[in-house]
Amino acid sequence: MDRIKPRTLSGFMELLPQKQAKLERMMQILRQTYALYGFAPLDTPAIEDAQILLAKGGGETEKQIYRFQKGDSDLALRFDLTVPLAKYVALHYNELAFPFRRYQISKVYRGERAQRGRFREFYQADIDIIGDGKLDILNEAEIPAIIYRVFRGFGLTRFQIRVNNRKILNGFYSMLGLTEKNGDIMRTVDKLDKIGAEKVAAILTEDCGLSQAQAAEILRFISIRGTNAQVLSALESYLGRDELFDLGFGELTAVTKNLAAFGVPEENFAVDLTIARGLDYYTGTVYETTLLDHPEIGSVCSGGRYDNLAGYYTDKALPGVGISIGLTRLFYVLDEQGLLNPALSGAPADALVLPMTQDSAPAIALAEQLRSKGIRIQLYGEQKKFKQKMSYADKLGVPYTVLLGEDELAAGKCSVKNMTTGEQVTLSPEDAGAYILTGLAGNNGPLILEK
Amino acid sequence: MDRIKPRTLSGFMELLPQKQAKLERMMQILRQTYALYGFAPLDTPAIEDAQILLAKGGGETEKQIYRFQKGDSDLALRFDLTVPLAKYVALHYNELAFPFRRYQISKVYRGERAQRGRFREFYQADIDIIGDGKLDILNEAEIPAIIYRVFRGFGLTRFQIRVNNRKILNGFYSMLGLTEKNGDIMRTVDKLDKIGAEKVAAILTEDCGLSQAQAAEILRFISIRGTNAQVLSALESYLGRDELFDLGFGELTAVTKNLAAFGVPEENFAVDLTIARGLDYYTGTVYETTLLDHPEIGSVCSGGRYDNLAGYYTDKALPGVGISIGLTRLFYVLDEQGLLNPALSGAPADALVLPMTQDSAPAIALAEQLRSKGIRIQLYGEQKKFKQKMSYADKLGVPYTVLLGEDELAAGKCSVKNMTTGEQVTLSPEDAGAYILTGLAGNNGPLILEK
Repeated sequence: MDRIKPRTLSGFMELLPQKQAKLERMMQILRQTYALYGFAPLDTPAIEDAQILLAKGGGETEKQIYRFQKGDSDLALRFDLTVPLAKYVALHYNELAFPFRRYQISKVYRGERAQRGRFREFYQADIDIIGDGKLDILNEAEIPAIIYRVFRGFGLTRFQIRVNNRKILNGFYSMLGLTEKNGDIMRTVDKLDKIGAEKVAAILTEDCGLSQAQAAEILRFISIRGTNAQVLSALESYLGRDELFDLGFGELTAVTKNLAAFGVPEENFAVDLTIARGLDYYTGTVYETTLLDHPEIGSVCSGGRYDNLAGYYTDKALPGVGISIGLTRLFYVLDEQGLLNPALSGAPADALVLPMTQDSAPAIALAEQLRSKGIRIQLYGEQKKFKQKMSYADKLGVPYTVLLGEDELAAGKCSVKNMTTGEQVTLSPEDAGAYILTGLAGNNGPLILEK
Repeated sequence: MDRIKPRTLSGFMELLPQKQAKLERMMQILRQTYALYGFAPLDTPAIEDAQILLAKGGGETEKQIYRFQKGDSDLALRFDLTVPLAKYVALHYNELAFPFRRYQISKVYRGERAQRGRFREFYQADIDIIGDGKLDILNEAEIPAIIYRVFRGFGLTRFQIRVNNRKILNGFYSMLGLTEKNGDIMRTVDKLDKIGAEKVAAILTEDCGLSQAQAAEILRFISIRGTNAQVLSALESYLGRDELFDLGFGELTAVTKNLAAFGVPEENFAVDLTIARGLDYYTGTVYETTLLDHPEIGSVCSGGRYDNLAGYYTDKALPGVGISIGLTRLFYVLDEQGLLNPALSGAPADALVLPMTQDSAPAIALAEQLRSKGIRIQLYGEQKKFKQKMSYADKLGVPYTVLLGEDELAAGKCSVKNMTTGEQVTLSPEDAGAYILTGLAGNNGPLILEK
């Protein structure tokens, strides 16, 4: 037979079982946390009408999108989960209850230039809350509180959710008479972390046409630092000069206060006036999240408040707030930095049951009994030498093996071997189950280890 | 703004939140059950190199596949989960432990003609066990035992897993001197349920060129019916005439015996000599699963034993056994037949917390306290009239609302309303959590109700 060399496309993550188990654990934490906050799981198609996905149009998206014909249809793969959400809410408006809260953890597709750590197929894990006409500011505090729970669930403590408000920025630019340039200014300021203050000032004066005084005023503003209380207090000196600014200040104050009520410690969130998010889309609170020991990664979770989710599809005003975790990239980075807890088992089973007699029936019954207690059991039926069986157990990484030979059968017992310590005990099936469960419970470390 | 009418492509399932919650529940049952039997979750890319996906080639697949260019790459969307598994095992052979057990619950894509109940994007939920060179017969009994647990987990009892063995069929055709025609014969016999015995006989003689006697012998053979013991006993009379037949008989006997050891009741599985599965791919045990009250649906879960998973990609002999549930179609049919338990809540939250005071902080703290007990809480911060808030709770279908007004706050309590009975009680937050959890526990019916 002519054989084809098997390969996986570059830019597409395909994990070995042990690693996949850890990614699945992250997804499970995401699903559980999102559900705990009353978000409904949503699952839109990966393929949509290309016209609908590209309603907004615009450069990078059009270039990166996977678009193709099938019959007469002009199709494309989704490149994010926001556009499909907008379509969904516009399409099913009459059948949904608002505020509508949904989470979606799905793959999206972007045919970017292949590059280490860049993926063409990757998971996004999004939450959004969509209002009908209005949406209370309380939601803008809840979103980062949920992200705090997710990251703590992963085992992370050294992260910071940075919060700002676009109304404050727009209001401030309006005070300087720079409203028409605020898009350019924000995109420039957004690069502060990457290029530094000096270059930002240079771009503002040379490319955006600001005066030296205006640029200096902006740099002074975004250099306001300190505790959240100190930053808010510094902002008070600007109050009364611009309505939008004052509105934004009220929102940022409310979000800060409520985030504390949600139990998010001050060390895990920071009011940061340099956060702007490049997109015009955002109109209020904006978020970025950084791993404090890995600032080079940039934001691993970003989002914000927007006024008009689905303007391309409906005349209904649908304001919302949302945040997105680039899960595949986050996982890749955590793995590369060696932060995935190696002590946490990625084995597909908690125990391997090894029948040592001709008749498999007693081993099958034992396996079923242990499974009924929630223990993940693999039954190993292959005719191999004992040494090969144990070497298989080692390769899988199962924490326990359960042996059932003639002696054990005669005594109504089974032998349980702890594969880490080598310790072996002979127990009744009932006690064996309890023994394994106790051992597994002590084995439950965090998913991520911070160094 | 020019608006585009939002739509979802035909042939693509997109569910409203209440329905989606039920599909998610099915997927959760699948994941948990597969994991309990020691299967590792796998997640291969949806896009693969078209040459690799089409290595086998062949009519329907080539016509239905979504294939497209991106840059110089010839790409395609996977049309099943077996071909990507074959690629995965061939590619990662040296890094895997065999037998390798994996489950994958993912969407696959087939550009079929749109038709009611036919989907172009649909979930398959597959399990496979792949051996290196050899694979014990025990695995062929375990696979249907797992499917039994899954279907019982869904709440189904009126289903039957039908089991046969291709070696018995091939051996039998060899006895009749029809080895070269066995592919044609099996494809014809496979249609027995749909077209009846008379038409099968006609096709066998007219199209396949069998003698009347041969056709009669085949029809007599596949009309062997009765309990599993009766069918096996009837087969004994054919023993000793063909080696392959005898081998198949031994396997079928072992599978039947072991299925009983796995605790699968006789009423849920049947040795059925009419099951052939159309594909040449299968070489031993084959499975089909039917809903007894809905035979018109056909098989909802099929699979079998194969000798060579990845012959297109590697010279390694990789025998395996697997089964696949067409999840999207199964869900669609169950829903259409009205079998999804309407009493089971599809609400995104267990309780809606309604702050009734100016300051949201106490309601936030209460919501967090209830969430810490695992209760899914939606916090409702919108400034609406009380009636509108309750109507929102009704629309969501949440079983409980929790009210926190000045009186409750002063007393350190909250009011919990059971939205089904209308009963309202005032409790401490601690007691409110226990009260809701008790109520939810009593509310845990099966996912599917059989009529």
